[in-house]
Order: sequence, then structure tokens, then C-alpha cells
Amino acid sequence: MWSRIFSRVQPLKSRPVIVLNFKTYREATGEGALSLARIAERVRQDQGVNIMVSVQHTDIYRVASSVNIPVLAQHIDARDPGSWTGHVTAEAVKSSGAVGSLVNHSERRLTLADIGACIAKLKSLGLLSILCTDTPETSAAGAALTPDMLAVEPPELIGTGIPVSKAKPEVVTETVKLVRRINSDLILLCGAGISTADDVARAIELGTEGVLLASAYVKAKDPYALLTSMAKAANDALRR
Amino acid sequence: MWSRIFSRVQPLKSRPVIVLNFKTYREATGEGALSLARIAERVRQDQGVNIMVSVQHTDIYRVASSVNIPVLAQHIDARDPGSWTGHVTAEAVKSSGAVGSLVNHSERRLTLADIGACIAKLKSLGLLSILCTDTPETSAAGAALTPDMLAVEPPELIGTGIPVSKAKPEVVTETVKLVRRINSDLILLCGAGISTADDVARAIELGTEGVLLASAYVKAKDPYALLTSMAKAANDALRR
Amino acid sequence: MWSRIFSRVQPLKSRPVIVLNFKTYREATGEGALSLARIAERVRQDQGVNIMVSVQHTDIYRVASSVNIPVLAQHIDARDPGSWTGHVTAEAVKSSGAVGSLVNHSERRLTLADIGACIAKLKSLGLLSILCTDTPETSAAGAALTPDMLAVEPPELIGTGIPVSKAKPEVVTETVKLVRRINSDLILLCGAGISTADDVARAIELGTEGVLLASAYVKAKDPYALLTSMAKAANDALRR
Amino acid sequence: MWSRIFSRVQPLKSRPVIVLNFKTYREATGEGALSLARIAERVRQDQGVNIMVSVQHTDIYRVASSVNIPVLAQHIDARDPGSWTGHVTAEAVKSSGAVGSLVNHSERRLTLADIGACIAKLKSLGLLSILCTDTPETSAAGAALTPDMLAVEPPELIGTGIPVSKAKPEVVTETVKLVRRINSDLILLCGAGISTADDVARAIELGTEGVLLASAYVKAKDPYALLTSMAKAANDALRR
Repeated sequence: MWSRIFSRVQPLKSRPVIVLNFKTYREATGEGALSLARIAERVRQDQGVNIMVSVQHTDIYRVASSVNIPVLAQHIDARDPGSWTGHVTAEAVKSSGAVGSLVNHSERRLTLADIGACIAKLKSLGLLSILCTDTPETSAAGAALTPDMLAVEPPELIGTGIPVSKAKPEVVTETVKLVRRINSDLILLCGAGISTADDVARAIELGTEGVLLASAYVKAKDPYALLTSMAKAANDALRR
Repeated sequence: MWSRIFSRVQPLKSRPVIVLNFKTYREATGEGALSLARIAERVRQDQGVNIMVSVQHTDIYRVASSVNIPVLAQHIDARDPGSWTGHVTAEAVKSSGAVGSLVNHSERRLTLADIGACIAKLKSLGLLSILCTDTPETSAAGAALTPDMLAVEPPELIGTGIPVSKAKPEVVTETVKLVRRINSDLILLCGAGISTADDVARAIELGTEGVLLASAYVKAKDPYALLTSMAKAANDALRR
Repeated sequence: MWSRIFSRVQPLKSRPVIVLNFKTYREATGEGALSLARIAERVRQDQGVNIMVSVQHTDIYRVASSVNIPVLAQHIDARDPGSWTGHVTAEAVKSSGAVGSLVNHSERRLTLADIGACIAKLKSLGLLSILCTDTPETSAAGAALTPDMLAVEPPELIGTGIPVSKAKPEVVTETVKLVRRINSDLILLCGAGISTADDVARAIELGTEGVLLASAYVKAKDPYALLTSMAKAANDALRR
Repeated sequence: MWSRIFSRVQPLKSRPVIVLNFKTYREATGEGALSLARIAERVRQDQGVNIMVSVQHTDIYRVASSVNIPVLAQHIDARDPGSWTGHVTAEAVKSSGAVGSLVNHSERRLTLADIGACIAKLKSLGLLSILCTDTPETSAAGAALTPDMLAVEPPELIGTGIPVSKAKPEVVTETVKLVRRINSDLILLCGAGISTADDVARAIELGTEGVLLASAYVKAKDPYALLTSMAKAANDALRR
């Protein structure tokens, strides 16, 4: 399942995935985005883990042209280039240096029709799609749309620090089961409340290939130390 | 696949399904909705076909309390009873006499998360769900959410009079194939441009159990004659 | 300012206005809506106050055809009759017996363009428009669109039981000032947290003609007693 | 009325305004945005006209850090920094070098409440707000929200090449009248279909300070020649 995204994001094959979502946090805007991306770049190289950063649209160009790490958009609109003032096309994020995009994040939900169109559009441009979903059922539905990755996140846990991998392990295991039945060829992540190396390890033990996290990294006292510990835990867990 | 919806809408088992969508057409509002529903009631009884009417929220009570035909809402919001001014809950449409609802119609798209929530809510209240989708891929995704029925409608053909069953038969056959693989237990319809008895027959020959149509019925010179011919064609086609 | 809406809703001229918003509360759905509307009808006649009920779309016909009280929709879409599955037109609410509609309630926000279109459409059909706004500034903006009534409601107080007329009197007085400067010909209400007769009196003393309330009435132990006391307090306050 | 925006965008006082909206046109993305902005920079300096460019979020940083011209966002969300994945905050566009933003463009409509919040937020950050509206009535409403500029654009003419200043001059003059009554301290533009120097002159003769245009510039054979002729016509018209 790693081959499809290989050329796009130079993934470290059979290594875990950690997607860092910068959201619109003040600390992760402009210069802040740059320095958080540089730390992630360092840990990626040191630990050999597929770390990616998902930054604000306004920061894609700045980060992608300065830091050697796969940069993702946080959202694209299901629109072709044209008369769509204020929208964000896949073409625009690609031209700024993004290698893919989150799709349908809990804080930016899309219609089913638009999700289908976004995934197809990203694919046609050679960009990576990471579809976010909220339940095992919508994850199964999402899997049928053949994104490259799927991240299940119970919205009620996002930003709480209560990790899905511990608070709702059954959401993760049920998602793994339903998704694999429909589409065995996608990389599965889980998110919501992921705060520690232990949460990351647990996520992988439940059958995923990695995690999607945001505030724990962005607001960490020492983001380098936290991410290093998470990367090590992820590598250990995937090896087991 | 007919058993699950049996008790709810007194379906005529193994008979075709014709869902009449009244949209917000002037001719299908208030008294107009009543008389179009009465004609449908008559054809339903005469021809033994599962004809249902999907009326505006404001007309559900009036139609359901006067006409002996399954009445569907055209949309519900993914909301529980409470502080949701101006929204339409599944509880409200049920209390007014509806036996189910369309979900995610092309003219009223929902997020994937809300589609999942609506289908689950309808199920929990013993109401029928008819999920509308636009492509074979989103139909496959929708099938994973286990609605009772699924209606595939290429939006570009809706209201054109150019029938999907003739203009884009491959959309229908591909949908049948992908959907059956994920969920063999749902009733499949197609829609968009269905205007004649022949379009209905063709839809069933392509592997569906029936059709969803709107303007052709609402704006027909003689809705009784049109619907009668469609019902006969549907019965003939399903028997073949 | 009372003359414009006189013929539509048989208002009691120069008497206060109390709009009861039933939202989608379980207690105010179907039969519940009917009985809460009947109580309001009784108090309206007894106390000579312009009490109106704003009910769910699915309940407009049932309430309006059984109870002698002005019935309002809680929302309309800025759409003409036609191919708008799942939407609610002004024509539909009128044909079901509504005499007007809330527009842009805090729980059902509309774009500025759609607010303009909804108010114009309601006016063209002889229906009453009650525009809801959130701040003095947006109230001033709303006044320029010449709705019949305007209800200012700070969203953070809605449903709290903390009355705007006491917690944020300056929002009300500032709204009165800005709105009157732009449009002296509209009836001004305030809402959010209105729970007691005293809150109603205070609202009128601040310069409004009445209130918009929801949960306090719908969930009252004795809605008749509460509404009677509010109506008396309103009449007293307006006379002062 | 020029003083308020003076320090922000170094406006050329009492000179006309031409806002160039790059939309999501392919020709105006990435490198294309850069070169179209450079041409506009040249004409601005040559002709002494307040030319500004409104670019895609992904291009703000690239254009603002390379070209000496006021750069505007095409849209911001009414959100503070925080957990708003996929949204665009005023803080983000400012940190990337934008001096302001369009608000409520016809292709990206906002709720009235969000328009109020966006204008207040832009003001608090020292950023310019250009509110877009569709009719004289919504323009009057918008004026009450005290944006720095207001651009009235009948949506049905946008992108047609049929100029509002000729096809619907009464929309412009009625807007001028209603807006000035409420807020004499704002710069008024008109847009939709503006394609030639003559259209620009006519817009100013009708009482505006300038125009908002998009496709005519972006898709011009010779954007430099077109913009130069527009700038000259604008200067001449304002001097008359």
C-alpha cells in the first residue's frame, strides 16, 4: 500500500506516518509555521518516520520553499480553476508546493459529492489525499472513494488531550475492520486527542499505520522532544 | 432485500419502486401536492407498484393525513430535537406522518458525516432512508452507510428530460456493480431525466429496482396516464 | 409603524409583541405544538397582546388550520418555486397558513444577499418578516433592508436564561439608537435569555416593542401562567 | 474619506481605485499571479492610480514579498486563530503580507453576522475591508457595517463582459444614493462586466471612486495596455 504514494512524497516505505496539522493556531502561522516545520524536518530525518506537515493555505509556499518535508494543504475546494473568488483549488496548492491535502477534516466538512470530486482531482494531479472521517461507518464509506490515506477522528475527542486510541479503541479497531474489507490498499491513521508517545504506539497496535495530531505538537513546550519520542514509539510499535 | 422496509411502508414485495419528488414546484405545493398525491395513490392501487411521494415539509401533514400512500420528506437535518430553529428533524417529519426521507438530494447536499448521522437516525426511528448520490464511486461510498434505498442521479441530467438510463447507462450499470459488491441488501433506483415509460423500463433492465422522478410527473399534462404507463412498464420490466 | 403589518396579522395596534419560537423542541412538535399554540391563543385574547407562534415547517399547516393565532415559519430559503428539493419557499409557508417568517435566526444564519432576497420576497407575498440579528451594528445593517420587525439577540445568551435585557442592556439600547436612525418604521424586539415577566418589562423599558423567546415558554411548568404574567408586564411597561 | 486607509495601503489620495481580482484563474495562479501583479505595479506607478491586486490565499506571500503593490486576500473566515483546520484567518493573511481583504464576494457569500465580524476583525488588525454586495438595498445594509470600501456587483453580470456601469447604471446610482445617506465615509466601487476604459470612466461618472474587475484583466491579450487605458480613463473621469 506504500507504493502508490511513493514518488509523490518520498515516503519511507513500511515506516509509520505522523501528520502534523497546524490548524490556524497563532503559534503555527507565518514564521511560527516555518520553525515548527523545521523541527519536524529534523525529526523526520533523524528517526526515519513519514512525518508531514499540514499548514494554512497562506503558509504553503513559505514552508514548502524553505523546508524539506512533505507539505499538505488542510483543505481544498471541489472547484476547477476559474471564477471562484476566495476558494482554494488543488491546482493552487500544488503550484505553491503542497504534495497533497487533507480532505473533509472535522473542522471543514464537505459534502459526499465534493469529497468524491476532491479525491479524484487530487489523484489526477498526482497529489496525496488524506480523507478524514468520524465513525467506522463513514470510514467505510470513505474507503470506497479510494483516498491514499484515511484518518478516523471522533470529533468529540479532538483537542481534548483524551486519546482516541485509549478512550475509544473500538472506534479504531472497528474502522480497521470495515475499511480493510472495502479497500485494503490505503494507509490508515487515527486522530483526536493524541498527545503522547504512548498514544501513538497504542494507535499503531490497534492496526493503523500512524496518527494525525495538532495541538499536542503545536503547543508543546518542547516540540522536538515530543515528536522524537512519538517517532521512536511509532517505529517500535510498527516493528512489533 | 424487501423485508427490512416491509412493515414501514407496506411495500408490495418484489414490485418496482417509483418515487415521485414534488420538489418545490408551484404545481406541487399545498392543494397541488394533495391532488398529485391522490393520483399517485390511485395508480399505486391499480398497478400494484411501490409508488411513494416525496413532498415539501410544509405539506407532509396535509398529504399524509388525507392520502393513503407512503409520504417521504425531501430532506432532514442531522439534528436531534432541541435548539435548532428553522431546521427539520427526523422526529418532526415522523410526527407529521412521513414514513421516511430522501437524504442528500443533488439539490440539498449534505456532508458525509451528516449523511451517516441522518441514515442512522432514520433507522432508529423506524423510518425509510433513500440516499441520493451522483456517481458510481459516491454510490459505493453511500452503500457502506446501509441506507434502505439508494438513488443514483447524475446532476447534469436532472430536470433535462434526457434520461440517465439512456444517456448514461454506464453510470447505472457501474453503480449496480460497485454497490452490490458492498451492500447486496439495498434497493437501487436511478434518476435524472426520467420522462417516459420506456425510460423506466430501461432503468430496471439495467439492474435497478426502480426510479426517482420529479418534473416529468409534476408537470405532466395527464399525470395519471403517464404514471400508469410507467407503472405498467416497470412491472413488465421487472418480470422479465 | 403598526399600520404596515395591520392587515396581515390583525395586530392589536400599539400593543406589545411577544413572539414564541418553538424551535425543534420535542415538547413543541406535532401535538405539542398544537397545545402550546392553543395556550398562546388564549393569552392573546385575554390580555390583548400581539402574541405570535413560530413553529416548525412540518407543523405550520396543523397549527394554522386549528388555532386562531398568527403563525410564523422559523425560516425560509431565498428560493423561488422550482427545482429546489428539500428547501422551503415563502410560497410554501404561505400556502400552509403562515403569515410570515423569522429570517436569519441565530441558529439558521443566512447570507446578506439571501436576507435581502427573503425580506423582499416576503413583502411581495404580503407576509411579515422578522429579521434576527446579533449586534447593534448588524441590526443597523438589517434595518436598512426594511423588514417589518427586527429582533436583536446576542447568540451567547440564547437558551441560557440570562436575559439580554438585564445582562447586556447596552446591546439593546445601542441597537434601538442605531436602528431608529436608519429606519424609524420597524417594530423592534429583543431576545436571548428572556425568562420572566420582569425580563419582558425591562426589554420594553429599554425601548423595544417586545420580545422573542423560546425555551422559557416551551419548557415552562405552567406556560399559561408564565405567558399571562409576561403579557401583563408588557402591557404595563408599554403604557408607562 | 481617504484618510482612514492612508497609512495602510499608501493610497494616492483623491485618486481613483482599481481592484484587480485574480479569482482562481489558471493564468493568475502561482507564477502567473506574480507576473500579473508586476504589470499592475508598473501601471500603478506610471499612472498614479490606486491599483490593488486580490490574489489567492496560496499566492499572498509570494506576491506580497516580491511586488510593491497592495495585496488583498479574496476572502477571510470569521474565525480567530485556533482549532479551525482549513480556514483562513485575518491574522494569517496579514502575516503573509496582505493589507486587507475582500469580504462577501458574490462567489463567496457570508452570513450577515460573519460579515460584521470580518469587518470588525480587519479593522482591529489595521487591515482594509472591501465589502461586496449585490443590490442597492444590501449595499445600504453593508454601509452600516462601516467597511473601508464597498463594491456593488449585480451577480448576473459578473464575468459577462456586459458592464454594470452601462447595463444597469441605476443599480450604481441608487447604491450611491442609499449608501451615502448611511455612511458618507466610504470609498464606493462598482463591478461586474467592467471590460474597457470606457466602462471605468462611466463607473466614476455615476458617482463611484473606482471599479473591481477580474477576467477582463486576467485574460487580456495585453494586460499592460488595458490597465493603462483604464487608469488614464479613471483619472480623467475623476478630475472632471
